[in-house]
Amino acid sequence: MGDIGMPTATLGGSTETKSPSRNKLFLGTFIHSKTLTELEYLHNAAVAVNSLGTIVAVSPDTDLAKAQTTILPQLSWLSEDTEIIVAKPGQFFFPGFIDTHLHASQYPNVGLFGNSTLLDWLNTYTFPLEASLSSLPKAQKVYSRVIRKTLSHGTTTAAYYATIDVPATNLLADLCLSSGQRALIGRVCMDQLGPSYYLDESPAESLTKTKQCIEHVLTKDPKMELITPIITPRFAPACSAPLMKELGQLAKETDLPVQTHISENKNEIALVASLFPDAGDSYAEVYDMFGLLTPKTILAHAVHLTEKEADLVRERRSKVSHCPCSNSAITSGAARVRWLLDKGIEVGLGTDMSGGYSPSVLEAARHAVLVSRHICMDEGRSEERDKLSVEEVLYLATRGGAKVVGMERKIGGLEVGMEWDVQLVGLHEVGDEEEEEDGGEEEGNVDVFGWESWEEKVAKWVYNGDDRNTKKVWVRGRLVHERR
Amino acid sequence: MGDIGMPTATLGGSTETKSPSRNKLFLGTFIHSKTLTELEYLHNAAVAVNSLGTIVAVSPDTDLAKAQTTILPQLSWLSEDTEIIVAKPGQFFFPGFIDTHLHASQYPNVGLFGNSTLLDWLNTYTFPLEASLSSLPKAQKVYSRVIRKTLSHGTTTAAYYATIDVPATNLLADLCLSSGQRALIGRVCMDQLGPSYYLDESPAESLTKTKQCIEHVLTKDPKMELITPIITPRFAPACSAPLMKELGQLAKETDLPVQTHISENKNEIALVASLFPDAGDSYAEVYDMFGLLTPKTILAHAVHLTEKEADLVRERRSKVSHCPCSNSAITSGAARVRWLLDKGIEVGLGTDMSGGYSPSVLEAARHAVLVSRHICMDEGRSEERDKLSVEEVLYLATRGGAKVVGMERKIGGLEVGMEWDVQLVGLHEVGDEEEEEDGGEEEGNVDVFGWESWEEKVAKWVYNGDDRNTKKVWVRGRLVHERR
Repeated sequence: MGDIGMPTATLGGSTETKSPSRNKLFLGTFIHSKTLTELEYLHNAAVAVNSLGTIVAVSPDTDLAKAQTTILPQLSWLSEDTEIIVAKPGQFFFPGFIDTHLHASQYPNVGLFGNSTLLDWLNTYTFPLEASLSSLPKAQKVYSRVIRKTLSHGTTTAAYYATIDVPATNLLADLCLSSGQRALIGRVCMDQLGPSYYLDESPAESLTKTKQCIEHVLTKDPKMELITPIITPRFAPACSAPLMKELGQLAKETDLPVQTHISENKNEIALVASLFPDAGDSYAEVYDMFGLLTPKTILAHAVHLTEKEADLVRERRSKVSHCPCSNSAITSGAARVRWLLDKGIEVGLGTDMSGGYSPSVLEAARHAVLVSRHICMDEGRSEERDKLSVEEVLYLATRGGAKVVGMERKIGGLEVGMEWDVQLVGLHEVGDEEEEEDGGEEEGNVDVFGWESWEEKVAKWVYNGDDRNTKKVWVRGRLVHERR
Repeated sequence: MGDIGMPTATLGGSTETKSPSRNKLFLGTFIHSKTLTELEYLHNAAVAVNSLGTIVAVSPDTDLAKAQTTILPQLSWLSEDTEIIVAKPGQFFFPGFIDTHLHASQYPNVGLFGNSTLLDWLNTYTFPLEASLSSLPKAQKVYSRVIRKTLSHGTTTAAYYATIDVPATNLLADLCLSSGQRALIGRVCMDQLGPSYYLDESPAESLTKTKQCIEHVLTKDPKMELITPIITPRFAPACSAPLMKELGQLAKETDLPVQTHISENKNEIALVASLFPDAGDSYAEVYDMFGLLTPKTILAHAVHLTEKEADLVRERRSKVSHCPCSNSAITSGAARVRWLLDKGIEVGLGTDMSGGYSPSVLEAARHAVLVSRHICMDEGRSEERDKLSVEEVLYLATRGGAKVVGMERKIGGLEVGMEWDVQLVGLHEVGDEEEEEDGGEEEGNVDVFGWESWEEKVAKWVYNGDDRNTKKVWVRGRLVHERR
């Protein structure tokens, strides 16, 4: 393991890009989060992105002519060597979404859970599917599809759970690399709870296989420019104490990120309390006992955390992935995002496929708004405090997610020094009826009538947008998805 | 008013169809609700629809060859005069959706409500837009779009609120007729609460204008084959007692349906109690006092009904339009659908645009599932009782909606004697990666991998389906929407 060490991801300073690319100049409207509650709108602006995918200039009130006489000379870029990408009127560039929690292996099961809840859902739907992905052709089919699908929804970074299988997990990493999706790739560690056909045989085997997957990534992407291995204890009930101890030690040695689940479902919490009686009824304490609550730990769900647990999470600077679609769909509960944010805990959004039914972070953002209203209603309060706004959920989907995956200096916003992980969003403008007759449908469900403010256009996108509105997607400056 | 009387809608027996149409034979898989909890799957079946749009034969296990030797001769149809429509493998015919509550006039505002709740939302977003639709070019643009949009989502019947304006309301009826969408068209009655620029001047004016709209429909569609006028007191706070009395009397004279809102929001309920102190804190009693709780009354929302109110609704056989997207979005509450159903109240689904953000009844169905889980979670019960299943919400979207609009013998299912209001649904089959490269995106977000059961395919459609899955839509046998 000495060879995996702790390589530092480069911030665009590398000379080793896999696919040599041209300098690019983007022109149009750019929107990104300024703060949790506020979006910044840059109209008629120019953003220059170098061949390594790093933003090197952001210039408001700059059209092509002005860019050619100001930005390009300053950068010593020749106009003829620079690719120019102009957003159409009404379109805007927006940071790519960061999906902080999803199971690539469960993608074929989206929408399938009946009326089950977490523990029976795992046995009925999840473990059999995950186990079946030890077939590499099947894994190839499923993983290729989930990457293409999430890219098409503007997900430029995904924190993936794969399965317990080493070759299939490595295949997922390879496919992300070749597709150009930024990803954290986790081989699932579980040595108990699962069915006999789907378990690591021992803590030692689990550790060895985890190291194999880490080494695979570091061989393919030594500087972790695009892919980062992530240590993945499935969740406390599926991991023995010795296994969690080993994984906590591994996290410490490698300084790699960790992902797991916490406090998703009440029966699960009771199970954890019975399995780890020394933790004093604190699920968070279980992970902390084994060194798994680090500043690089992504905790999915956090629905039923106690005050004390949340304080511990805050103290350890661990992060939370809020997965509202999943929490509603499998009846887990409603996570109190405002309460977590007020405590100073960083929160991002996760689709949590296939506990969540949708591949779209935009759908997660929309449902986060709706769930926050249910929290407000449940508590019988008429005050606005618990409600999340459109601006806030877009922050969670970008800047918040970047903090959760530990890349806030690299992605989530549009500033010099950050990498160009961006989607180009277009909304449908309702024209005269004649024009509409055979041209409207593929434009999606956001209808702009012409009198809307930019803030209203963004709200319409959040409420009715889908992958049809995501016209192009770039990761590190590379075009990785384009609609026909 | 003597001339509007009470025409009976014909059950396909009319000889006056607007556009003469051929007999049609549909072949493939047909799915519809058998009971609240059960879908019926008819594979390799044939359904014959005559030129009037009425289903005249439903035959399981019948391919084209068999149909030509059995059904066609029985019907005395010539093969060469019969249009044959074959669903591709994996596609299925499903009853068109019935949207039991939406405001056509508010369509441009979908997604725009910020953090507002009902009463401030009306003043900030809604009344100004509705008032502006007295401009007929604007009304034409908005109404054309909402009809095309809802048809594209498989909505074959819509219970529309228009505005207080007579010409614009009549235009909506005309556009539904020409587009072929079955609709209930309501001119909005309101003589108080609204701003001065958007009010009926008196109960008498409100009544006169309502009658003008009714007469318009009955001139254009005398037998109400496609369009039905519906008496529309906006909601109790916007209608004076004299106005409600007149409208109750009109409902009795004409036997026309009624639509209004009930018990959507707690502040609204308090307002009603203060405006109608004689009703004993019962919102339902207010409508009942004026004869507006009829077996043909559609009550939108019904979120906070008391036991006593629900019993009164049940006794009057009035119906409920459940609008979950709206109720979550503007923080109204979570309607207890199971409780209403257990009481024997008929329930359908409404998008309630633009309190609701989505034009899709499928989205309303999906969100009805999710809201039912929140009800389950809020009450701290682990039992399954409150949860609505995929099958149940599809029932509400079709058979339930048909009962709510009083057309259960005509639409909502696929039986002989019913009219062919149907959508053809197609799901995307994930193929080999090579084929996928430039062909997958427009297929929507339902991915079928090939090993799913039919029940699972339907669940996938409910959770991730959108208008891209609705390939064709017919109303009364007429093709009214087709994707390119």
